[in-house]
Amino acid sequence: MHHLFELILSAPQPVEEPVKQSKKQKKSNRKLHTFEEEFSTLEEAVKERRNYLENITEKKVLSELPYKDYPYEDVYQRCCENVIGYIPIPVGIAGPILLNNKEYYLPMATIEGALVASTSRGAKAITESGGCYATVIKDSITRAPLIKCPHLREAVSIKKYCETNLWDIQTIFNSTSNYAKLQNIKPIIAGKYLYLRFEATTGDAMGMNMIGKGVETAVMYILSNFPKSKLKSISGNVCVDKKASAMNWIEGRGKSVVCECVIKEDVVKKILKTTPDKLVELNYLKNMVGSSIAGTIGGNNAHASNIVSAMFLACGQDIAQIVESSHCMTLMEIANKKSNQKDLYISVTMPCLEVGTVGGGTHLQPQSAMLDLLGVKGSHKTDYGKHARKLAKIIASGVLAGELSLMSALSKNEHMIAHMKLNRK
Amino acid sequence: MHHLFELILSAPQPVEEPVKQSKKQKKSNRKLHTFEEEFSTLEEAVKERRNYLENITEKKVLSELPYKDYPYEDVYQRCCENVIGYIPIPVGIAGPILLNNKEYYLPMATIEGALVASTSRGAKAITESGGCYATVIKDSITRAPLIKCPHLREAVSIKKYCETNLWDIQTIFNSTSNYAKLQNIKPIIAGKYLYLRFEATTGDAMGMNMIGKGVETAVMYILSNFPKSKLKSISGNVCVDKKASAMNWIEGRGKSVVCECVIKEDVVKKILKTTPDKLVELNYLKNMVGSSIAGTIGGNNAHASNIVSAMFLACGQDIAQIVESSHCMTLMEIANKKSNQKDLYISVTMPCLEVGTVGGGTHLQPQSAMLDLLGVKGSHKTDYGKHARKLAKIIASGVLAGELSLMSALSKNEHMIAHMKLNRK
Amino acid sequence: MHHLFELILSAPQPVEEPVKQSKKQKKSNRKLHTFEEEFSTLEEAVKERRNYLENITEKKVLSELPYKDYPYEDVYQRCCENVIGYIPIPVGIAGPILLNNKEYYLPMATIEGALVASTSRGAKAITESGGCYATVIKDSITRAPLIKCPHLREAVSIKKYCETNLWDIQTIFNSTSNYAKLQNIKPIIAGKYLYLRFEATTGDAMGMNMIGKGVETAVMYILSNFPKSKLKSISGNVCVDKKASAMNWIEGRGKSVVCECVIKEDVVKKILKTTPDKLVELNYLKNMVGSSIAGTIGGNNAHASNIVSAMFLACGQDIAQIVESSHCMTLMEIANKKSNQKDLYISVTMPCLEVGTVGGGTHLQPQSAMLDLLGVKGSHKTDYGKHARKLAKIIASGVLAGELSLMSALSKNEHMIAHMKLNRK
Amino acid sequence: MHHLFELILSAPQPVEEPVKQSKKQKKSNRKLHTFEEEFSTLEEAVKERRNYLENITEKKVLSELPYKDYPYEDVYQRCCENVIGYIPIPVGIAGPILLNNKEYYLPMATIEGALVASTSRGAKAITESGGCYATVIKDSITRAPLIKCPHLREAVSIKKYCETNLWDIQTIFNSTSNYAKLQNIKPIIAGKYLYLRFEATTGDAMGMNMIGKGVETAVMYILSNFPKSKLKSISGNVCVDKKASAMNWIEGRGKSVVCECVIKEDVVKKILKTTPDKLVELNYLKNMVGSSIAGTIGGNNAHASNIVSAMFLACGQDIAQIVESSHCMTLMEIANKKSNQKDLYISVTMPCLEVGTVGGGTHLQPQSAMLDLLGVKGSHKTDYGKHARKLAKIIASGVLAGELSLMSALSKNEHMIAHMKLNRK
Repeated sequence: MHHLFELILSAPQPVEEPVKQSKKQKKSNRKLHTFEEEFSTLEEAVKERRNYLENITEKKVLSELPYKDYPYEDVYQRCCENVIGYIPIPVGIAGPILLNNKEYYLPMATIEGALVASTSRGAKAITESGGCYATVIKDSITRAPLIKCPHLREAVSIKKYCETNLWDIQTIFNSTSNYAKLQNIKPIIAGKYLYLRFEATTGDAMGMNMIGKGVETAVMYILSNFPKSKLKSISGNVCVDKKASAMNWIEGRGKSVVCECVIKEDVVKKILKTTPDKLVELNYLKNMVGSSIAGTIGGNNAHASNIVSAMFLACGQDIAQIVESSHCMTLMEIANKKSNQKDLYISVTMPCLEVGTVGGGTHLQPQSAMLDLLGVKGSHKTDYGKHARKLAKIIASGVLAGELSLMSALSKNEHMIAHMKLNRK
Repeated sequence: MHHLFELILSAPQPVEEPVKQSKKQKKSNRKLHTFEEEFSTLEEAVKERRNYLENITEKKVLSELPYKDYPYEDVYQRCCENVIGYIPIPVGIAGPILLNNKEYYLPMATIEGALVASTSRGAKAITESGGCYATVIKDSITRAPLIKCPHLREAVSIKKYCETNLWDIQTIFNSTSNYAKLQNIKPIIAGKYLYLRFEATTGDAMGMNMIGKGVETAVMYILSNFPKSKLKSISGNVCVDKKASAMNWIEGRGKSVVCECVIKEDVVKKILKTTPDKLVELNYLKNMVGSSIAGTIGGNNAHASNIVSAMFLACGQDIAQIVESSHCMTLMEIANKKSNQKDLYISVTMPCLEVGTVGGGTHLQPQSAMLDLLGVKGSHKTDYGKHARKLAKIIASGVLAGELSLMSALSKNEHMIAHMKLNRK
Repeated sequence: MHHLFELILSAPQPVEEPVKQSKKQKKSNRKLHTFEEEFSTLEEAVKERRNYLENITEKKVLSELPYKDYPYEDVYQRCCENVIGYIPIPVGIAGPILLNNKEYYLPMATIEGALVASTSRGAKAITESGGCYATVIKDSITRAPLIKCPHLREAVSIKKYCETNLWDIQTIFNSTSNYAKLQNIKPIIAGKYLYLRFEATTGDAMGMNMIGKGVETAVMYILSNFPKSKLKSISGNVCVDKKASAMNWIEGRGKSVVCECVIKEDVVKKILKTTPDKLVELNYLKNMVGSSIAGTIGGNNAHASNIVSAMFLACGQDIAQIVESSHCMTLMEIANKKSNQKDLYISVTMPCLEVGTVGGGTHLQPQSAMLDLLGVKGSHKTDYGKHARKLAKIIASGVLAGELSLMSALSKNEHMIAHMKLNRK
Repeated sequence: MHHLFELILSAPQPVEEPVKQSKKQKKSNRKLHTFEEEFSTLEEAVKERRNYLENITEKKVLSELPYKDYPYEDVYQRCCENVIGYIPIPVGIAGPILLNNKEYYLPMATIEGALVASTSRGAKAITESGGCYATVIKDSITRAPLIKCPHLREAVSIKKYCETNLWDIQTIFNSTSNYAKLQNIKPIIAGKYLYLRFEATTGDAMGMNMIGKGVETAVMYILSNFPKSKLKSISGNVCVDKKASAMNWIEGRGKSVVCECVIKEDVVKKILKTTPDKLVELNYLKNMVGSSIAGTIGGNNAHASNIVSAMFLACGQDIAQIVESSHCMTLMEIANKKSNQKDLYISVTMPCLEVGTVGGGTHLQPQSAMLDLLGVKGSHKTDYGKHARKLAKIIASGVLAGELSLMSALSKNEHMIAHMKLNRK
């Protein structure tokens, strides 16, 4: 459960005073969230909530929403409230893709036609060229509490305190979890306000909850020396969670992954039906020039978001984080240039892929099975964090495949339009 | 199916030459995408693909991934390829929320605990304060083809041609669909390159496919007068699809929606457990100052992405588009200030909410049922586009509720930390 | 004089109450701005102010600051207050540069060594290649007043009013000046706030003052229909003046200019000492990839700001506007590729070059002489705006020359470092 | 002289081949840059160059451009080439302003009327409120060379090498100058490319040349271990020099300064003619909301650029750097709130103010006199860098004064417009 939301739910429920109600409103007297307490099984509660909702809205529309045979015990008080059933999202398999000398089949939960097929095509080109290589260059989740100081002088003092006492703060922070390790604190001052951007590794968890607890304890400790300064919010939007920002783009968040590959010219022609020259030109004009015109943050790519969202959904990740997790710079250039050959070099650089293999929705059985398929289920036994980093690399390889395939299709527009002209004559 | 991907699939399949294979690779000789042709039912094909995948990966992991009793005919050759089952995402109900004088129950497909409960709490505060008001201030999907001209002079000529012949181009464009109506073309020049950002309404469809067809035809028409200039790509990333960009933030994409509400002071205190003053201060320090420090695009909010992604998933929208659909500016200020009263004014401004009630995944029965619950299933009978705009307004109201609730929880951090200090003593 | 500052100065001066002063402060009893009233000549006033300043600060430092023989009557109550002399900035001449088939010598006021020489080198390469071509693709200065409405509904009403009554508003607006012509109003809504971005041509003036007056009158007219809405500020920072913003980058401000050139391969080698291939690669890696990594707005260039600031200073422009006037995208690619030849295509796209040839500091004689040298002194007699647009094109050509030259120098780093290694052995 | 430009000038001059010339071109056979070698005094060379320019352009326009009695020896081969005279920019004095308990008179070279007067008004309000406080929270200039590696693996290796061998690299780097001290290297990877952002203190120099030399030597040293990787450019635009970027906004460049002040309510009313409430509201709506709408980088202010550019010009700074040096976030809030009082808290946060008191144009006598007036002439005798940091603080205080004054004027628009309505009736 989201740590911030815990605060809401753990608060004592208000004693509700009677409110004057219109006739329509009267029907809604029953509380949507209390059904589970009234019925012997969770499924019965779900069923009854469906009935209640149909009655109160006077809409008989829920028959098409499946609800039977779902393990509600995995969800109740954990993943979702006021449940009325579930949305099934079909899972397709792309690949195999050869990544770091191993083949993977990529699970993608999506309702966008051709996305799986297209990614598969890219994966094939990669695999036939000898595979891609990916590596995680930074691993840290972040949280930036917001502190109000009495004046600038004290903000500077706290900044210096954090810099000179990092070791102590780490000890305090790390004591809040078996996995969380504080890496660094980046203090940012604006007038008399101080935003302390904590960076921590969190084992195989995505880590937002873990870091939240560590930050609270660490801030309490820090501020005990500065009683006039106050924590205004555990998050001051410098974190930056679920928003596009230059901060994450530059500093990284979650896993910073890079994946690259050289695609042989004949593979480009045979499988991708285009040429390295065309791809390089289009990547420049679309992903660099076009994106720069558009004033993008993290958007120097064709459709990283498609692959990230499909794999996030299949693997139990937090899909609200695809906003920044899909930040990606796709680069292409001619490689191995010789008189009679031009291969294609392609890379994707993704600085803020926020993933985990424990916590969040990863315990749900179907999602867990998908992690298992990728060999990254649960926490790594000895090298905490290895599963999550591997998952990040696999997703990046999927993005590489997706970029390759869509860019290839687009690079043929000129040719296609010429054909269309011909045909329509 | 995504129009761009169609190009890939409709291309003639390559005649595959034999490739030297290692023993491991040999096992994968079977094509993942041909199973449907070999079996009498789609479910049998799915079942067989699961077996095949388990064999080839030597991992018996798929038993937990459900696959039975799913209407694969809705998905096959339409929504997903190489299907092996489905991921069920639980759907919770938030609300009711009073929006434009009508109550709505918001379906949210999510695995983030407390999100539905939190949104419900915000909805309750809104409803008890007399409801919120939302309106769509712009409605247009966009596509920006990339054209390479021989020189700057011709790029300027085409720009002028588009401006002076907009009427003709509209006629051509609108002929490609019963619903698409070209509103405007925004030509952007960079050196000798021209990016033509087409804006069109597309009835109740999100409209990416529809506008794609119109753009192709319109560009063919335009370029017939400029034979030296060439379409390099139907998309030059000035569209901007599935990337965060100032272009969408400033110009809008899909529906540009604004939703506002005045929350009475006693409601703030009773339901949200905070005060208008605390909320206003935090909104300023977090959503304005913090987000500005972080160099955000579209991120002047607390967690719009959470609500947008849960409702997109429940309602059959394209979740890869939540990158920009969750762009949101949340504003708060004191309202109705009197000697003994301070209410809270709150608004969310969302310039690029890309939604539709036909096309994409909206035909899938469970998702369709959720649209039905909201009264926006399918195309509006007479006022094309009304359902999609209504859906946008409902989602914005959900975001308003979500912002209100999470910001309230965060605004109490100071208090909470004080308590923690107390307790841990 | 800046229109906004007029408001300050025209306000009645406060009746100053006696303030308790320390001994040190007592010395400063005299008002710095009243000297001109006390002396018969402006130069005497300047001289006396220098004495006064040296006395009060107890620093004899002003002898090196020239002040004699300056036409203070051009400055007094117009360009600068509390004058104590002047800073002489040396003016160098770059060029000639062949632009649109005419040769220009570019005046650059700068204290950055080698800037003039480097620009000259670029100009030479351009001129020897047959010259460059520049054109203004948009011409409009902007001002965006900020309006507070009672609620969202009224903000939408005013937006619609502006859109449907543009003709009337134009009439009102245009009546405030002989030169200002309102082109468009772009209304932007955030909650209940409305930012109306006015776009106008202003003849040969940069136009900030002119548009300011038009906007005030137009807003008064608009709001006379909406008495509950109030103008909060004549500028709400959506203008955007003297700040870097995606708004100007995307929409343009002042003159939007593009300048391009093909540099012959032998010229690249002979004059620029590099190769087209090296330049193209570096432009991609530095101005596109590097700038995207850095999260730039308007910074896809090497050093446009150097040339813009030197020419702005020489030509009496407002140097505080170089922030956005130096926004520039520099593109390079191989042109005229044949078996034995590769020329270089280069372009600079500058969407917000804010220049004028009347108003501001253009009446000062030295600056005016520089405009005269360029053939753009004062207002064009018949085609208002032609001089300002021409000045914009000339500056863009200077930027093209500057980009070409610095990029050439940088492209040889690899080679240079190799030499350094050699030499230091 | 700019280090990068040195490369250009030090290159052997090309043997120029005869080019076919039109009649007009023939006149320009003389080289503009050789006059100094032909005449006995520099002033004669300037005079002759003026004549030559008037002849060749057939424009008698230079009589108004002063050129006599200027110490050309300070400029020749150092600050400007092809000199034809100088542009005098009037210098006004704003202040006094009480900063860190000391009074300063601010020299501003400007041709924008009312700027000095307005800044003075703000300074008066600050001084009468007890003065402002400023501090430098970070001090480092940056340079980011661009390195091309054979593949991602090696880019990662070099990144790690830099991180683990920082001490050695510092020794090498610091050996290139008596003042430069390498603080940190921030390695950024994009595919196989590596941008190494060096951060260094450089005493009282702005430091671009100094860091350039250090970086070259350090990169040679680093790459001697990685012979397959190559320096492509000493600057890869991640520095970021003379461009607006989130990188500088977030990481800082030059001096990161913050300045704050509490303005007493009666001072706000008496001197600024407005109220703290009006200022706070306008600052929120203009500098935060408006700037966020506009998609700004570093533009959360009203007109910092005006003050920065005027003081840069007066003090011999590089005005091309005002692009990022004027990045500023202006914050306002109510302070000391009591039943009968509301003071105004205001701060300016400027993360990338690039200034120096030695090097660049600071040796020129008039500019040097202005530094002297501020007590920051030349290098500090013992605490290298103290003068430059002090200059940064003084400029920030000027920006604070400027923001206060213009915002006050704007905050009265509502009132003013009401008056205008009245008067025009």
